Order: sequence, then structure tokens, then C-alpha cells
Amino acid sequence: MPDILIEDVLSGNLLAVSRSLTEVENNTEQGRQLLDQLFPHTGKAHLIGITGAPGTGKSTLVNALVRHYRRPPEGSPALQIGVIAVDPSSPFSGGAVLGDRIRMQDLAGDPGVFIRSTASRGALGGLSSTTSGLVEVLDAAGYDRVIIETVGAGQAEVEIARLAHTAVVIEAPGLGDDIQTIKAGILEIADLLVVNKADRPDARRAVRTLQNMLELPGHSARDRRHHGPAAPAPQEEQQLERDHSSWEIPVLTTVATTGVGVPELAARIDAHREHLQQTGGWTNKEQVRIKAELDVLLRRRLVDRWKSSIPSGKYQVVLDQLVNRQISPQRAVDWLVEGEKS
Amino acid sequence: MPDILIEDVLSGNLLAVSRSLTEVENNTEQGRQLLDQLFPHTGKAHLIGITGAPGTGKSTLVNALVRHYRRPPEGSPALQIGVIAVDPSSPFSGGAVLGDRIRMQDLAGDPGVFIRSTASRGALGGLSSTTSGLVEVLDAAGYDRVIIETVGAGQAEVEIARLAHTAVVIEAPGLGDDIQTIKAGILEIADLLVVNKADRPDARRAVRTLQNMLELPGHSARDRRHHGPAAPAPQEEQQLERDHSSWEIPVLTTVATTGVGVPELAARIDAHREHLQQTGGWTNKEQVRIKAELDVLLRRRLVDRWKSSIPSGKYQVVLDQLVNRQISPQRAVDWLVEGEKS
Repeated sequence: MPDILIEDVLSGNLLAVSRSLTEVENNTEQGRQLLDQLFPHTGKAHLIGITGAPGTGKSTLVNALVRHYRRPPEGSPALQIGVIAVDPSSPFSGGAVLGDRIRMQDLAGDPGVFIRSTASRGALGGLSSTTSGLVEVLDAAGYDRVIIETVGAGQAEVEIARLAHTAVVIEAPGLGDDIQTIKAGILEIADLLVVNKADRPDARRAVRTLQNMLELPGHSARDRRHHGPAAPAPQEEQQLERDHSSWEIPVLTTVATTGVGVPELAARIDAHREHLQQTGGWTNKEQVRIKAELDVLLRRRLVDRWKSSIPSGKYQVVLDQLVNRQISPQRAVDWLVEGEKS
Repeated sequence: MPDILIEDVLSGNLLAVSRSLTEVENNTEQGRQLLDQLFPHTGKAHLIGITGAPGTGKSTLVNALVRHYRRPPEGSPALQIGVIAVDPSSPFSGGAVLGDRIRMQDLAGDPGVFIRSTASRGALGGLSSTTSGLVEVLDAAGYDRVIIETVGAGQAEVEIARLAHTAVVIEAPGLGDDIQTIKAGILEIADLLVVNKADRPDARRAVRTLQNMLELPGHSARDRRHHGPAAPAPQEEQQLERDHSSWEIPVLTTVATTGVGVPELAARIDAHREHLQQTGGWTNKEQVRIKAELDVLLRRRLVDRWKSSIPSGKYQVVLDQLVNRQISPQRAVDWLVEGEKS
């Protein structure tokens, strides 16, 4: 296969972009080289993370939002939109399910919209290890907005918050008793909250519940973000928070199927970007985002390097002793990493 | 605080167990020492992973199952049950939400049931890094069944499948368009599928859909499991699959609120254990489980060791250059790990 030309990607050539995404997704040598060359050209797109539990109508809302961006009011330019739909369906096989592509069929002929589904990978680094690379390709290729869409609870939402400038969390009325628990976590990462399916009778209650939770002391999203980094940088982390602590998380309502509330959602997403730019929060978000990506790559490299350094067979010997409970996991790690069998 | 006595934990002393869980959860030195000493006493409990999307009634079903185990038919002994409820609500603060504990209030006075909620942590290792330790404490303390409950889509389910001997995935009728996608992933990890809320009119359709998906070629759960290990052991991995490939994943129905179908669910969970024991699958599951735990600890140790090896400030210098797009993430890792600035 001929090499992908950087200039073609930068000029937004659809075939070059598509092939680049595939190389990056498969973590090939060419993919890594492309990322290396594209990276200086990134940093222009507004990265919008959209996440929500199953049943919230998140996919439909993303479609509606993309349509809105493509058919702006008279006088505004249509935006170029990239979508990375992270699909948790197939952590093992690496194949993305057709569903995401099919549901966006009415957008498929539009050259100003690029949609790519990707599977979320297994344990090693999870969502962000390849997703941040895919986002960088679309960013470098000139897409104005890159939407990162995930089905998520917990982990996925955390990672999206780190990957995006603006994190939108979708809720729907009456999704059962787990919702309460999930909400508490959501409040820590959301920049915007949306109650979709707002034509349902219990929508008002959902909005009120979210608003009440936002008012609880200690539940400001800004108080808690970005703990647990892979390498310490405590002063910067604290600095980050203060700069954009004045953003009030809005609770919006939409009916994705009819488009009600979608222009307002788009406007608030824009308002969040302007807020970040005015307060210095944009740079801080960039730093957190890039730090998260660096940490994932670092971990991967450290594991790879260690793997190539130990004698073949040693890992299996240690694992066998562990399974037979002759040593504990702690001792096993001592032995493997430090070389000492205590 | 006085030391926790190993003998107290092993004899199931509630206070000692509770305090051990706290030490393990906080990853203290005492917690690590406890795990080291308790590990030889583990391996007796049947570990049951129960996962499902929000709104499936998973929590209620876990309660019903625990009640069933505690009130067995005449002549059978009541089992000792441990529950680790992994709560994705608070990845940052590390605090578990009260909800899980409250909902099990009717079981709270029963000394044969030990329930602990724990928050799923951030990116580093995720679910399994502390959860496997918590499970080991309850296993060593003599609980016959340890239920690991998570709200999950994707990632969390994968990790639970590795942590448990028997993975139960809960569905509910009509949860919207994301369900299709999630199901495809679920089929790869579930040993048992349950359609809860089976008194709803569309329950039969949900059961049929799941059964149809199970019959799709290439969608046998057993074909795909355990890819993407942190260290290679390809021969063993393949061996694992063959041994218990004959298990037919059943699709059960329950109504958790009334208890309908719960005895049958418990019976099928037992049948899965017997199947594993008869086919050698039990040992293989143990190997996969312990390997996953080892890999998480390994990654953590490698990162810690690397962190203490680099000059203070170097990380921040590299990060700053990265944020300013003077170097790419790949080059940043080269510089940090290999020491070369290319």
C-alpha cells in the first residue's frame, strides 16, 4: 500500500483521512509516524465529548447536533464536523458495529461530515489510547468540531472528560435506580448536562433532581477533577481548577427526535468554549488532555520495554507459582520487576 | 490503630474483615501486607460477577439472589455471602455512595452477609486494581460466594469477566437503541444471560433477540475471551478456551422485585461452577483471573519505579514542550523513557 501523504491529510482529502484513521486505530508503524507528523498541526478543533447511559437517546442527539452544525442559520458558515463514535460493543475483536454508521446514513453523503466508529479496546489504557490519536487526525485535517461519543458509565466518562474540551452528559427521565448513583459521578465530569426525551412526563423531575444535585456542597464538578494522574504535578492541577471554576453547569432539555432544544445545546457548547478561552481554561484543558495522552503512551512503553527485558519463560514460571498460591501477587511482582525472589 | 490479626480475618471476624477491606481499598502498606499473608488462604470462594446497564434492575436482583442464598430450602445449609458492589459514581473522590448500602438494609443485620461498596478508581488499572484485593479478603475470610456487582458497559464488563468464575449479565426489555450494540459485547463475556423485569410485555422479544445473537456464527463467548494480555502467553490462552467451550450460555428470565426466577438463576450459577470443575475450566479461569491481577500490579509497579527514576522536573519540562506542540507525544515518550531527545 502506498504511503499516506501528510499534505493530503492536512488538506482534508477524505481517502487520506480515512486511511490515516485506520493506521492509527491499528497502531501500525505508519500510524505512529503519521501522528508524529500531524501533531504540530493539531490544537485547532473544539473537542466535544458526549456521553450517556444506554437508553438516553445519545446517538440520536449527536445526529441532531451534527445536522444543526451542517445547516446553520443564514449568514453563518457550515462547520466541518468529525465524529468519533467509541463503541464498547467489541472490546475483544476490535470490530465496530455497523449500527453507528447506519444510523447516520442521512449524513453519509455530506463531505463536510466525517464519522468513524471505533471499538473501545481492552484493559490496557482503554478508551484514550487510540481515541486521542483518532481525534488528532481529524483535528489536523481541519475539522472545526470533533465530537467524541461514548456509551458510558464511570470509566468511559472519566476518560472522555480528559479527552474533550467540553464534556456533555446526556440523561433521560426515569431510567431506574442506578441513575442516582451514576449521576453523582457525572456531576464531577460534566460541563453541560442534558435531559433528553424532554417530552416525557417525568422530564421535569429529572431536571430538578440534577439541579438539586448540582447545588449539593462539594459536588461542584470543578472541585474534583483530574485526580490520580500517572505522574505528579500537584501545583498545576490545582491551578487548573481555579481558572475555570466560574462556569455554571447548565441543565438543558432536548427532544433529539424532533430537534427541539438542539440549537440551544449548540449555543451553550459554544458558550463553554468562549468561557474557556476567556478564562485561560482552554490552555489548562489542553494540558490535562495532553498529559492524559502522554501518561497512556508512557505506561504502554514501560510495559513493552519491561516485556522485552525479561528472560523468556520467566513470566510463566512466576504465574504458575502464583496460581498454585506458592507466592502472593506482591511477591510475584517483586520477583518479576526487581529480580528478587523473596 | 492496632494491627489487624490474620487469624481474625481468617476466622471471619466482622470487624477484622471490615478493617482489612478498608486498608486494601486505600492501598496502604498494612493492606498490602494483609493481602500477602491472606493470599495462600484464597481460592475457595465461588466468584460471581453480576453486571448490567443502568435500568436493568441489577441491584434488586443481586439482593434477591443474596436472600435466596441465605434462606435455602429445608436441609441445605445457608451460605455465607460476600458482596463487593463496585460503584462507578465517584471515580475521583474514592467515596462510595450510600445507595448500595441502604438498598440492602433488610440484609444488614444478617452476620452471614457482608456487603461492601467501593468506588471504581480512575484510569490506572481501573476496576480490577483494588477489587481483586477486596475479593481476596472475603475469599480468605470464608465467604462461600463472593458477588462482584458493577454497573457496566464495555470496559467494566470485560474486567468483571476476568475477575469472576461466573459472569452473569443482566438485561431488561426495551432499553433503547444502544442495547443492540452493547449486547454484541456482552455475548463475549457472559456465562449466563438474564432478562430481568420479565413481567413486561416486551420481555419475550428481548429473550428471543439474545438467543438469536447467541446463535450467530463467531459469537460464541468462548471463542474470543482473554485477548490483549499485558504479557504474552499465547499457548495457554488458546488452551483455556477449548476446555470449557461446551458450556451453552442460557438466557434466563427473572422478576427481581417478586423473586420469580431467582432460584433457577442460583441453580444455573451452581451448574456453571460444576461445569467448570468437571472440565478443568475452573483452574483455567483461576489462571486468567490471577494473570489479570498480576498484570495490573505489574503496570503499577513499573510506573512507580519509572517515576522514582527520573529527575524531578523533567516530566513537567517534557509536558510543557508537548502542550506547546514543540514535540509529539511519541517523541516525548522517547525522551522520558529512553532518555533521548530526538
